[in-house]
Amino acid sequence: MIEQRLAELERRLQQIEDERAIERLIASYGPLVDAGDPESTAALWHHDGVYDVENWLMNGRDEIAAMVRSRGHQELIARGCTHFLGPAVVTVTGDEAVAVCESTLLVKQGNQFRVARGGANYFHLKRVADSPGQWQIVRRITRMLDGAAESRDLLTDGIAGRIR
Amino acid sequence: MIEQRLAELERRLQQIEDERAIERLIASYGPLVDAGDPESTAALWHHDGVYDVENWLMNGRDEIAAMVRSRGHQELIARGCTHFLGPAVVTVTGDEAVAVCESTLLVKQGNQFRVARGGANYFHLKRVADSPGQWQIVRRITRMLDGAAESRDLLTDGIAGRIR
Amino acid sequence: MIEQRLAELERRLQQIEDERAIERLIASYGPLVDAGDPESTAALWHHDGVYDVENWLMNGRDEIAAMVRSRGHQELIARGCTHFLGPAVVTVTGDEAVAVCESTLLVKQGNQFRVARGGANYFHLKRVADSPGQWQIVRRITRMLDGAAESRDLLTDGIAGRIR
Repeated sequence: MIEQRLAELERRLQQIEDERAIERLIASYGPLVDAGDPESTAALWHHDGVYDVENWLMNGRDEIAAMVRSRGHQELIARGCTHFLGPAVVTVTGDEAVAVCESTLLVKQGNQFRVARGGANYFHLKRVADSPGQWQIVRRITRMLDGAAESRDLLTDGIAGRIR
Repeated sequence: MIEQRLAELERRLQQIEDERAIERLIASYGPLVDAGDPESTAALWHHDGVYDVENWLMNGRDEIAAMVRSRGHQELIARGCTHFLGPAVVTVTGDEAVAVCESTLLVKQGNQFRVARGGANYFHLKRVADSPGQWQIVRRITRMLDGAAESRDLLTDGIAGRIR
Repeated sequence: MIEQRLAELERRLQQIEDERAIERLIASYGPLVDAGDPESTAALWHHDGVYDVENWLMNGRDEIAAMVRSRGHQELIARGCTHFLGPAVVTVTGDEAVAVCESTLLVKQGNQFRVARGGANYFHLKRVADSPGQWQIVRRITRMLDGAAESRDLLTDGIAGRIR
């Protein structure tokens, strides 16, 4: 009986720790990419992970780090920008997980900011094999919320915890 | 002694699970309503639940689903919109809970977005009787933060965990 | 063996409770300051705590409460404003903690809102000695994300959990 209660507590706690590790990872993206840290941003992904934004398909950590170092991103940082991600909804199933959140990109213009984007963000993640409690993004798909069915499907699949 | 420690661990874990279930429910609202899913959006509420926005008082799930299907909401989605809710502060007391968060509504305009709203969101929730760990909204009150005392009181009551 | 498992569960649960207490404190700031509650806003800080915004260095709770009561802040509230903070990334080390989040300030203008700020927020917190599970801000540094290295360093230090 004690054994059962201990095992059940451990299982429930592990689930919260997994979800929280993923929430933390996603909440770290904005600060890291706005700080302009190419390696730490890329390290949120699996080394073969994919970051699929509408006009830019990045394959693997090197290409993600290159995006942070790119002239386009560096100009955004120099001007002043906030990649603002909302609270993620996370669904863990064994060693895989799906998460979803909405986001906005604020860019400085004069003495205020303009809202350059409103987006849907879908994440497929995997548990790191030899490092308990650690997760990495296998695939992130980001689309502007512009009325397209494709963007809205990211939200639906994300909330349902559906792996694409 | 072991019995006491197990019971205490179970109690503390249950509290976190309750709060997290409510945080997740609230974080799901934006993605579901921006995806345009009437049934899943309405299912966040108790079947008799109320959604009280300044110009629209919805009573029960059918009226909430009807809002998602309405011409006004569908036009927002078609244009491109993000109902962006911030992290919720949740206070659970037995089988009832109060939560509060701020929100913004971004609407696409040309190739960027305008900020159509900044709002205060107050939630009164109840535990679902026969489904442990599940919560439903009994009443959500949303008001624009426009200087009115009414909107500010939602924030104060929400943080204090006061049931209205 | 049972003793060990209980102690380990208690330790893991305590860590989550600490992190969540800090997340809740940070998520309370926006609602409290937008409600215009000087005492509750100031109570998030240690009585000697510092709030360092670029043009305003507040020392201690009285000066923080005075900011909430100030003509500038009251005019913001009367016009309509949302101090919107994103999900915080929290790192607890013993009785100290570091947290970071991004934020935006929305101010009502006509029948919509303008984005007055996009900011980086760095928090150094301490555990309240005689009140388990309670934390207070020792120092909060907030800077506009305007391309300055100083603002970006807040994000980097915050994610790394570095005490300044």
